[in-house]
Amino acid sequence: MAKEVTKREDNYSQWYDDLVVKADLAERSAVRGCMVIKPYGYAIWEKMHEVLDRMFKDTGHVNAYFPLFIPKSFLSREAEHVEGFAKECAVVTHHRLMANPDGPGVVVDPSAKLEEELVVRPTSETIIWNTYKNWITSWRDLPILCNQWANVVRWEMRTRLFLRTAEFLWQEGHTAHATQQEAIEETEKMVNVYADFARNYLALPVIVGHKSPNERFAGALDTLCIEAMMQDGKALQAGTSHFLGQNFAKAFDVQYTNKEGKQEYVWATSWGVSTRLMGALIMAHGDDNGLVLPPKLAPIQVVMVPIYKSEEEHSAILAKMEELKAELCAHGHTVKIDDRDTLRPGFKFAEWELKGVPVRIAMGPRDLAGGTVELARRDTLEKVSVPQDGLGSRIEELLDDIQNNIYKKALAFRDSKIRKVDSWEEFKNEVGKGGFLLCHWDGTKETEEKIKEETKATIRCIPMDSVVCEEEGKCIYTGKPSHRRVVFAISY
Amino acid sequence: MAKEVTKREDNYSQWYDDLVVKADLAERSAVRGCMVIKPYGYAIWEKMHEVLDRMFKDTGHVNAYFPLFIPKSFLSREAEHVEGFAKECAVVTHHRLMANPDGPGVVVDPSAKLEEELVVRPTSETIIWNTYKNWITSWRDLPILCNQWANVVRWEMRTRLFLRTAEFLWQEGHTAHATQQEAIEETEKMVNVYADFARNYLALPVIVGHKSPNERFAGALDTLCIEAMMQDGKALQAGTSHFLGQNFAKAFDVQYTNKEGKQEYVWATSWGVSTRLMGALIMAHGDDNGLVLPPKLAPIQVVMVPIYKSEEEHSAILAKMEELKAELCAHGHTVKIDDRDTLRPGFKFAEWELKGVPVRIAMGPRDLAGGTVELARRDTLEKVSVPQDGLGSRIEELLDDIQNNIYKKALAFRDSKIRKVDSWEEFKNEVGKGGFLLCHWDGTKETEEKIKEETKATIRCIPMDSVVCEEEGKCIYTGKPSHRRVVFAISY
Repeated sequence: MAKEVTKREDNYSQWYDDLVVKADLAERSAVRGCMVIKPYGYAIWEKMHEVLDRMFKDTGHVNAYFPLFIPKSFLSREAEHVEGFAKECAVVTHHRLMANPDGPGVVVDPSAKLEEELVVRPTSETIIWNTYKNWITSWRDLPILCNQWANVVRWEMRTRLFLRTAEFLWQEGHTAHATQQEAIEETEKMVNVYADFARNYLALPVIVGHKSPNERFAGALDTLCIEAMMQDGKALQAGTSHFLGQNFAKAFDVQYTNKEGKQEYVWATSWGVSTRLMGALIMAHGDDNGLVLPPKLAPIQVVMVPIYKSEEEHSAILAKMEELKAELCAHGHTVKIDDRDTLRPGFKFAEWELKGVPVRIAMGPRDLAGGTVELARRDTLEKVSVPQDGLGSRIEELLDDIQNNIYKKALAFRDSKIRKVDSWEEFKNEVGKGGFLLCHWDGTKETEEKIKEETKATIRCIPMDSVVCEEEGKCIYTGKPSHRRVVFAISY
Repeated sequence: MAKEVTKREDNYSQWYDDLVVKADLAERSAVRGCMVIKPYGYAIWEKMHEVLDRMFKDTGHVNAYFPLFIPKSFLSREAEHVEGFAKECAVVTHHRLMANPDGPGVVVDPSAKLEEELVVRPTSETIIWNTYKNWITSWRDLPILCNQWANVVRWEMRTRLFLRTAEFLWQEGHTAHATQQEAIEETEKMVNVYADFARNYLALPVIVGHKSPNERFAGALDTLCIEAMMQDGKALQAGTSHFLGQNFAKAFDVQYTNKEGKQEYVWATSWGVSTRLMGALIMAHGDDNGLVLPPKLAPIQVVMVPIYKSEEEHSAILAKMEELKAELCAHGHTVKIDDRDTLRPGFKFAEWELKGVPVRIAMGPRDLAGGTVELARRDTLEKVSVPQDGLGSRIEELLDDIQNNIYKKALAFRDSKIRKVDSWEEFKNEVGKGGFLLCHWDGTKETEEKIKEETKATIRCIPMDSVVCEEEGKCIYTGKPSHRRVVFAISY
């Protein structure tokens, strides 16, 4: 092995941390809670960015950019919003440093205190709705369908690379609509875009549903989400889409003149996914050898490793590889030839397995003579010798097959972790085993909080599809009547 | 006219501000010095981003992401660097707000004071070199060729949209090399990438050269730059590439083992362009009707406006337009049909002129009957009736022609603003008229500073190409001998 990775069954959490660092995805920085996203990790994020950006544009959205800073007073305008975000934010209070009068280095210049403190955006509803106020006069100005790719900061106390960091990268869509109906449709449309992205690119099966009131975004009337299942049986929220009603329009006094000439408050949505998706990708598919990347998001889809003894063999094999690479590139694949001469093939194999490259092609003198290559697929670790002829279309099929297989495997795993639980005793026994527990709930905040207190499990969502949950029953905790099951789990 | 724009000759500065706002590129935000980049402006920046990103990758660079925050003490490690950046930075001192005990709203929670203040990055050399320290052990780890797309903050006192804002978007390349020679080559390579981008995409002629020591980046041994000429005769620095020597490697103790097994400090470069390029684009090409966008960076290359009276004409023209649009899109062009039914064609024409769309196609009933369209090009405002047949290739040629013409026009203007000046009297007379003044200079800091004090002119660069400047002469200010002319100008 190139680098030792802890086995999942020994310590899943350590396995994750190992993978992030040893596969060169990210590392902790000198700044508390902030990460450095390394080139290989960033290349995967760039792929996600590219696909999502196209999906947003295909659904009529445009990008824009709003300030990093939010005046402190803006946060307070929406009562629940400030409650949710004021407790963990980075506050800018001064705009200058000066030479330290008492020693080396620099200190904050006390004369450069800001009149009003600025908060580094934890999310941008407030600054954006303050801006939209000037963009919206009449129904003709609606809808506004903006997205922003940006960094945000939430001063989390316990951080983990990608999953929970003080600074993270994300996109945040902020839309403004004339009617409630249109805003609700937008909220649903975008959670479905996320579900589509999760399933078809991340190869990640997700349950789409509503959050319970306790778990809603601070300031939302409804939060839709996609929930995924990790290999340790914990749930991970992978994306959210919020119906904000008229809360922010009222907080920032954003009204429009409707077709009848009457003033009305504007309806809002916001929706986002973040570098947390990197965590989902790693934890959903990785194995004890390292990452397993879905081909559609792999920065390198095919790696080629030459195997040779003499310099003559080397150059002949390399020439053939360049030829094959050109063919694969013409098919639209991303190919790397690993021709480092200081490392042995076995080391390279392990390294590219660790990095999750979907397909490895090895070629030695016998392959060269016989017109074959050795194909190894990362997902199943199967190896097979195939002719060089027609390699382009073979790889195309193989990458499709890997993409589908990774999804199917994750789906089978996820489904094996879903079960119905009908009593409180059973729930307490089952919850520690992980997975999604489908249970009846009486619909009250109090019950949800008590269940959380006693078991750490939360309602991940009230499912909209994927899982059939409409049925009569009794709340596992209070025994009160319930009309549908909801999804409980321990979550990240 | 759709919206009134001040004429350039009346007030160039107001013309610029009008254009930025009225063409929907950007606007001031509620946060002092920070701008909102509106969707149309952001779409142009996205094009720049896309092209530059490809150019960086084609020259072997990869993207990564480093923290937004820099520990205060990091800034002090490099003496000149802290001098350059400490005076205008946003300082984070606390990590929590709390309910105001004395009234409504929230206040900074005094118990959440950070042990060490964090500076919002004004540039990332320090945090990146602190990171590179852990990435570099041996010569095998070099070179590191990273770029970052990010937001940065410099607390400028006087701000102007795009040209000088507290927060701006940019890319910053940070490379690490084993040898001085390699780092110098990288510095030159990247300033040439910028010059190529400026000339071939922005259609902006630039002079490439070295900054004088006074104008260097804080912490650099040499700064290369591209300098452009705006229509008001002022210079604009459009991009810089710094040879940092071993300054940051020494400040952060980044050494590597060379092939001979000896420890050596690593050599560094950094290079960047920012949303300031948007300002250059606007000021270099715009006219009294609005923006003039080079086709290669125009979010919309062709706009189509239907002209009709009856609903029958409308639908027939629209159907034909959709057909032509499909043909143009197949040629790779970006086309918009402006079918808004509440606005007259003349209003639409003016609006798209204001927004700088390179080509406008109008079609009325007579065009429909005759199989023609009216083509209008934004750069010359010429209109011509052409057959619908073969429109795709005609537009392709036209867009090329416009791209070239815009560049030629800017080049002719720029060249008309370059002149040799040989005496101090003449310099004082000429400098107020704008343009690049090629003058002899004795090479001292003192002379440069005195010239700046007396005239506000600075040395924009010591040219490397574009302008022949090698010749013997005497310093315009001190009369001391000089071996080459340098470029003086009043600048943005």
